[in-house]
Amino acid sequence: MVNLKDDERLDYLLAEDLRIIQSPSVFAFSLDAVLLSKFVYVPIQKGNLIDLCSGNGVIPLFLSKRTKGTITGVEIQERLYDMAVRSIEYNELENRIHMIHGDIKDMPKQLGYGKFDVVTCNPPYFPTPSHEEINLNEHLAIARHEIFCTLEDAIRVSSHLVRQGGKVAFVHRPGRLLDIVTLMRSYQLEPKRIQFVYPKQGKEANTLLIEAIKHGNPDIKILPPLYVYNENNEYTPEIREILYGKI
Amino acid sequence: MVNLKDDERLDYLLAEDLRIIQSPSVFAFSLDAVLLSKFVYVPIQKGNLIDLCSGNGVIPLFLSKRTKGTITGVEIQERLYDMAVRSIEYNELENRIHMIHGDIKDMPKQLGYGKFDVVTCNPPYFPTPSHEEINLNEHLAIARHEIFCTLEDAIRVSSHLVRQGGKVAFVHRPGRLLDIVTLMRSYQLEPKRIQFVYPKQGKEANTLLIEAIKHGNPDIKILPPLYVYNENNEYTPEIREILYGKI
Repeated sequence: MVNLKDDERLDYLLAEDLRIIQSPSVFAFSLDAVLLSKFVYVPIQKGNLIDLCSGNGVIPLFLSKRTKGTITGVEIQERLYDMAVRSIEYNELENRIHMIHGDIKDMPKQLGYGKFDVVTCNPPYFPTPSHEEINLNEHLAIARHEIFCTLEDAIRVSSHLVRQGGKVAFVHRPGRLLDIVTLMRSYQLEPKRIQFVYPKQGKEANTLLIEAIKHGNPDIKILPPLYVYNENNEYTPEIREILYGKI
Repeated sequence: MVNLKDDERLDYLLAEDLRIIQSPSVFAFSLDAVLLSKFVYVPIQKGNLIDLCSGNGVIPLFLSKRTKGTITGVEIQERLYDMAVRSIEYNELENRIHMIHGDIKDMPKQLGYGKFDVVTCNPPYFPTPSHEEINLNEHLAIARHEIFCTLEDAIRVSSHLVRQGGKVAFVHRPGRLLDIVTLMRSYQLEPKRIQFVYPKQGKEANTLLIEAIKHGNPDIKILPPLYVYNENNEYTPEIREILYGKI
């Protein structure tokens, strides 16, 4: 049994035989989070993973299907943290996924420096707008804008949490590519793999997946591009497989 | 009439109704140079363009078909400079393309700061190897290794030559992406457009095209990917069109 509040619904994560609590007025995960969960390197048999800016816990839930390691999720909004906790319980993953309600900036002190093999983060994409422009829905504003967490916060904290040689993976907009690689390098995270996601053929990329290694050697690879839609505006086979599994 | 020396041959630049002097033992242009010539923004009716590390002049020759402006090419190797001059004469483009035999590092003093609308460069790709490893063919070694011109030299000189708001376009290996964007930004060149070239679908990118604007605003676009070969190892239609023109 699951306790659903207000306009929450229990959605399938179809490809993974998981279910997740979502709410259109509070938070619903995006394709970007799913792509990051599939893109990042994970140790299969064991390991210590952490997901920052976890929202309703979608990335920890997906990661739990790729690794037998333990996963920590950190979310600053109590309402989203609570959704994540209930989803984890519903999927009986309490022994593998641990949610923390808190500010990612406090995590290195709270959890220790260099303790994680993998850090993932799907941070707020947009700089904090002027007071008038800001999303009147506080939950959505915090998830989308750099109100509690700037890009530099997220990268600095990731660098502090990850061990030497560990991986840090982010998803973001391609327009922030240069800021991300500059910030990563300034915090000893060497970008190693980039994949661009294109809405369809002939369009500019609208999503960036990037993975860095703490104190890695400079040598970056640009992976084959990923297309979301085909010319008929249907998901491409590669995206369908990620979302719904092999058919 | 053209005066061909040693093992030189007169090759067609098929798409452009141009001919160019090549020599397998000295220098033959690569697909990368052609791609850069097509990628870069050019003013159509007039303008002042310069190509650094010009080799046998392939980029100035291609650019002459896209702009009515004047084009300067700079090449440090006299043998290649001489091939370029003869190709330009053969194509009767002496009034539009001017080759300089010299070191790009001397050009800002020689030609003036901020005088060019567009700078292109297909620089040597490889760091200078140890003395034993270096290519015994001096012409090829200079064209391929950072012997007379490091990446930083090429970017610094480009920044000095281009006017405010002018464009600087480079072709290089994706592995140098982070070095290029970091160096460009440190010389007030803001990267604005990137295109990755993939040898075929499912492979990592092996070529990077990048264009920056002097003192531009930060905002980068990742253009649709370019594939060179299809699954049968034939040129894709887009590459065939670049090389041979519309068929």
